[in-house]
Amino acid sequence: MTDPKRRGRRPAGEDTRAALLAAAREVFTEQGFDGATVRAIAARAEVDPAMVNHWFGGKQGLFAAAVELPVTPEWIRETVLSGPVDQIAVRVVRTFITTWDNSGGGSFATLVRSAATQESAAQMLKQFISVLFGGIIRELGVDQPELRLGLFGSQLAGLGLARYVLRLDSIVDADIDTLAATIGPTLQRYLTGDLNLP
Amino acid sequence: MTDPKRRGRRPAGEDTRAALLAAAREVFTEQGFDGATVRAIAARAEVDPAMVNHWFGGKQGLFAAAVELPVTPEWIRETVLSGPVDQIAVRVVRTFITTWDNSGGGSFATLVRSAATQESAAQMLKQFISVLFGGIIRELGVDQPELRLGLFGSQLAGLGLARYVLRLDSIVDADIDTLAATIGPTLQRYLTGDLNLP
Repeated sequence: MTDPKRRGRRPAGEDTRAALLAAAREVFTEQGFDGATVRAIAARAEVDPAMVNHWFGGKQGLFAAAVELPVTPEWIRETVLSGPVDQIAVRVVRTFITTWDNSGGGSFATLVRSAATQESAAQMLKQFISVLFGGIIRELGVDQPELRLGLFGSQLAGLGLARYVLRLDSIVDADIDTLAATIGPTLQRYLTGDLNLP
Repeated sequence: MTDPKRRGRRPAGEDTRAALLAAAREVFTEQGFDGATVRAIAARAEVDPAMVNHWFGGKQGLFAAAVELPVTPEWIRETVLSGPVDQIAVRVVRTFITTWDNSGGGSFATLVRSAATQESAAQMLKQFISVLFGGIIRELGVDQPELRLGLFGSQLAGLGLARYVLRLDSIVDADIDTLAATIGPTLQRYLTGDLNLP
């Protein structure tokens, strides 16, 4: 691999980091998470591909930073998939609430705000849902994986909307146990339950 | 009542209508739907209160116009409450999807966009959920009405977010029967079912 100390045409440091973030948002939007390569993003940013590892620890970390996610998708995946399958949704709710509460909820609101105002940010948020949970659903080997992902995304994004953007009183006031108990069964049904299809 | 032809200080016609909409957004935001009076809104707009009936058919219609709702809250309430209680949620999903699909989904996206970028619009969307469904939940006479409203709002707003803002493929492609069958049971549980509280 290239020496991480080697530099591209741009100045080092924060400029390189900012250029990579801007390029990542463009390339992830155009090609999706799977299609976007570290090489393509680095080329767009006009920096050495090794800078991606240097600044973000890899493609997952770059994606997390691009969508202002306070943890890596890898960490979420491991947290959610560890433990019994019938408790996955409860772990998702707990991880989701802990993650965004700890960042003050502001970055989730930013994500939704951007998604509502820019088509490219909406694409990023779609990618975000798909990267985080598409893989988990595929591993579960259930029927209707795409529909399940959409239903799951609608309830999880709706929870974030209610708690961090609209700030609906009862959802803001609810503790994590209440949210896990009430919303967990919904998400669990969307993941592994009977969808009641017509 | 005052003669609807009588006019306030402002010019008649579209100016009056626009002044009432702007005043309504302010007063509904500050005082909520129940607290806001037609008199206070008209005073803020510097027009005769009778203009509210003239242009919007009353407070409900003014509210619907202020949040760009394509139908009146009254109509939604009647549609949703007619028929068996255990089918309310299915009617909500059908009414929600039909209403916003018919307006091309654009006005829902506008609502979310505004809510994400302006605190006042977020307050309006909260009011919107509360006005439309708070009354329905109170009429059902269930326990935990506030929490039920929040949970219900999170899934319904999340459905709108997924279909009209993020445009998640499987939720955009799903027909109304599929959405009613899959999301209906979630909303029905939030309205009248066991919340599984800890």
